[in-house]
Amino acid sequence: MSAAIQDSYAEELSHCYGCGANNPDGMQLKTRWDGDETVTEYLPRPEHTAIPGYVHGGILASLVDCHGTGSAAAAAHRANGHEIGDGTPPRFVTASLQVDFRKPTPQGSPLVARGRIAEQTDRKVVTDVSVTVDGVEVATGRVVAVRMPDGMRPKG
Amino acid sequence: MSAAIQDSYAEELSHCYGCGANNPDGMQLKTRWDGDETVTEYLPRPEHTAIPGYVHGGILASLVDCHGTGSAAAAAHRANGHEIGDGTPPRFVTASLQVDFRKPTPQGSPLVARGRIAEQTDRKVVTDVSVTVDGVEVATGRVVAVRMPDGMRPKG
Repeated sequence: MSAAIQDSYAEELSHCYGCGANNPDGMQLKTRWDGDETVTEYLPRPEHTAIPGYVHGGILASLVDCHGTGSAAAAAHRANGHEIGDGTPPRFVTASLQVDFRKPTPQGSPLVARGRIAEQTDRKVVTDVSVTVDGVEVATGRVVAVRMPDGMRPKG
Repeated sequence: MSAAIQDSYAEELSHCYGCGANNPDGMQLKTRWDGDETVTEYLPRPEHTAIPGYVHGGILASLVDCHGTGSAAAAAHRANGHEIGDGTPPRFVTASLQVDFRKPTPQGSPLVARGRIAEQTDRKVVTDVSVTVDGVEVATGRVVAVRMPDGMRPKG
């Protein structure tokens, strides 16, 4: 698999709770290419519970969300002729997030999110996401990501 | 406003990362009736950032998710002739979650989620959620919640 797209994000834009390398309290998600699919793995912390023994839906939603924006950045970077590690990719933010919880998600094993780019323009990337645990699909989702507005960039 | 539905959940089912009273590392969300609407307020922690200065989408998704399942429990309890604080409500889990991010959500002020019950049967409750910050709507969502399967209940 490739390097992680989040490790190519600009330093001042790397504080995301889900996937920022500079957020020590966050989930530190890492999205990589595996051929034409994108992959993020995450082992939930013990406190990330819903009903005891099962993973909290909001953690699954955070995984799908950041995997979607990471996939969007990687896909846009590739469309611009670059692979991960070769320059700074454009950044995307989430316009909408849909998650369908297919089965209760057991705690204790890594979540594996795999993404396929369903639609891509210069401004918008739609990623379909499947989340599995030990090979069993527990959730599916769709992330509509749009180019980060310049107004959101930190000043100074 | 009423007492919080989460404070009526059974002790062994109160460990949710989003809304469990017995999860000291969680968000400790509290859902209350305000007339026929449900309300949850939450002040994100400094680390709950996306792009610096803005709230992480996964935190908004967690708020919408637990507000939806809390609203479902409160609505089912009311349909059974009970108000919050009068007995133990039935529990619901999320079948699907949709969040539309309408505006970048600034950090530093409480998020206010308000829910309206859009559809209700004995088995399923659909809640439409609006999230505002300082009176400005930043996100909307829909949560389809279903009765918790008996098989998810902790053994012992």
